[in-house]
Amino acid sequence: MSEFGLIARLTARAGTRSDVALGIGDDAALLEVPAGEQLVACCDALNEGVHFLAGTEPADIGWKSLAVNLSDLAAMGARPAWALLSLSLPRADAGFVDGFMRGFSALADAAGIALVGGDTTSGPLSISVTALGFAPRGLALTRGGARPGDSVFVSGTLGDASAALERIRAGRAMEGAQARALAQRMRRPTPRLALGQALRGVASAAIDISDGLLADLGHIARASGVGIELDADALPASAALRAQCDRAERLRCQATGGDDYELVFTVPAERLEALRALAPQEAGGTPQTAADPARFPASQEQGDRGAASLDLGDLRWTRIGRVVAGEGVRVLDACGAPIRFARAGWEHFSGGAA
Amino acid sequence: MSEFGLIARLTARAGTRSDVALGIGDDAALLEVPAGEQLVACCDALNEGVHFLAGTEPADIGWKSLAVNLSDLAAMGARPAWALLSLSLPRADAGFVDGFMRGFSALADAAGIALVGGDTTSGPLSISVTALGFAPRGLALTRGGARPGDSVFVSGTLGDASAALERIRAGRAMEGAQARALAQRMRRPTPRLALGQALRGVASAAIDISDGLLADLGHIARASGVGIELDADALPASAALRAQCDRAERLRCQATGGDDYELVFTVPAERLEALRALAPQEAGGTPQTAADPARFPASQEQGDRGAASLDLGDLRWTRIGRVVAGEGVRVLDACGAPIRFARAGWEHFSGGAA
Repeated sequence: MSEFGLIARLTARAGTRSDVALGIGDDAALLEVPAGEQLVACCDALNEGVHFLAGTEPADIGWKSLAVNLSDLAAMGARPAWALLSLSLPRADAGFVDGFMRGFSALADAAGIALVGGDTTSGPLSISVTALGFAPRGLALTRGGARPGDSVFVSGTLGDASAALERIRAGRAMEGAQARALAQRMRRPTPRLALGQALRGVASAAIDISDGLLADLGHIARASGVGIELDADALPASAALRAQCDRAERLRCQATGGDDYELVFTVPAERLEALRALAPQEAGGTPQTAADPARFPASQEQGDRGAASLDLGDLRWTRIGRVVAGEGVRVLDACGAPIRFARAGWEHFSGGAA
Repeated sequence: MSEFGLIARLTARAGTRSDVALGIGDDAALLEVPAGEQLVACCDALNEGVHFLAGTEPADIGWKSLAVNLSDLAAMGARPAWALLSLSLPRADAGFVDGFMRGFSALADAAGIALVGGDTTSGPLSISVTALGFAPRGLALTRGGARPGDSVFVSGTLGDASAALERIRAGRAMEGAQARALAQRMRRPTPRLALGQALRGVASAAIDISDGLLADLGHIARASGVGIELDADALPASAALRAQCDRAERLRCQATGGDDYELVFTVPAERLEALRALAPQEAGGTPQTAADPARFPASQEQGDRGAASLDLGDLRWTRIGRVVAGEGVRVLDACGAPIRFARAGWEHFSGGAA
């Protein structure tokens, strides 16, 4: 297959949006940013053996390469619009490209994002995605606004992806519904797009968990000039994680495992009521979504992805701690004593210890 | 060095612009696109052994990784604003990163572009840059507007970079002023930013030459539904190329060699006067620049780069042919007979033959 045949395969699944004046096929894309909005831009790369295991399904690589970027947009409270894809491949493998784009476009279509440009080159397998979106001017969420007295929340559950990775690396078979549920969280992370947008004007700070809860909350603590205390027993765990891990392993995966792609955010006391109004979780009520549900249609691949299905519109969270004066992030046991971990989370170029 | 030490080294040279509301250091950048402008976005990757030779100076890799993207913006008539950098490195090598950023930021500063985000990961050496800029709505240059009767022009001179590459690959020493001048064109291509902007409203189509003159003009021919005839004797050559190559090699490098990063563009007869007004080349007059020269200050590294110096504001071109009815791109000799080439230009995934 030629480079141009390869580009044709990518373009076929690029998607469309009315704000794309010129998409793939020229020297650059021409795009319309709405008045009153700031452009939100981020870029994350994935390498084999670092961000995904050798032998990972191409569709899962495609999904994840976009998901990690959409998760960054979610953490800013941005709504996604466009992506550019830089794909380096050892050879022009039509099967890989088709599989990759099947996963990439399943998430892109669900999130309403169009692929507007990129580059394919020969080289070692490496994927870099730039995601672009919008946020109303001055309303984007950042890492720097947490203040002592704020509550700390996290979306979804923690630790599934890293527990799956540990099991696969240890050569354990990932059989049974619980093990498969963990693996699904690793293979197909869910960017919390609706939640991020709903938190504008509510959260004082936010970040997505890519390197591990403690490592990423450390960024909020440093940027905000505060300390953070977490309650170990409050960290949310999936039924699968509870079934597969003992307490020590579970807590380690929840606090320091990477690849959760949940949002962790802080909310001042005076805005807790506004947070509750977003999605009443008690009393069995139907969760309200502040974001337009039409922006987050169910993926056509949903049936393929099992229980941990695409839920870009999910608006659930758990209170896990509080912002305090001082610095650093501590996890406290039921007696209020700090729990020590060997590492805070994943860091590149240092053997994984941060 | 840790990942965060590495990021600090990148951030130190990121540059600033007043339209960057939030730069490196959060989950994404927040950027202000001016009213009335379209966002122009492109993404190009560089891999060792494909886009640069093993052993290339890190500063040259940094320069070129940005230059190839700015060249795409130039071909759209866009003015550059921001860049995101995805850098995959086998190890956190401070010397490499400092050298890379010295070259990257020399060009970024000269072009007035700010580095606003990116990603550093461990993996095989691979660099992907996303460049973002603006063009007044509806005035960007594309590949699709060439019409029979238009004249075809190219900026600068052709073939230097590919002649240098052939010599280095053949193990020839690149000594003497002429050989060094060729190598300089390969190591430090000059994106024709001022020319691209000046051509808005003048050129009917434009593209930058990355894969080779014939290959890239082929994109204009296809997108515009026209044919193109070039005059072999009109293709501009540097004094260095004339000194180093015989006629056959020179013509092959000019017509099919990659990495020139000159602009090739078409102009309708009724706008030739407007083109001439941009930069009177005859009569010894001082070239006029339509773009604001303050946007293209001389690089602080200019002394380091020798004769083929940074000239982002250069507004010179040569008429090389015409647009005709039909399809394809042909090079004609002085008798009007077509000259055959073994290949049109560089293509990935096919051994270089397009």
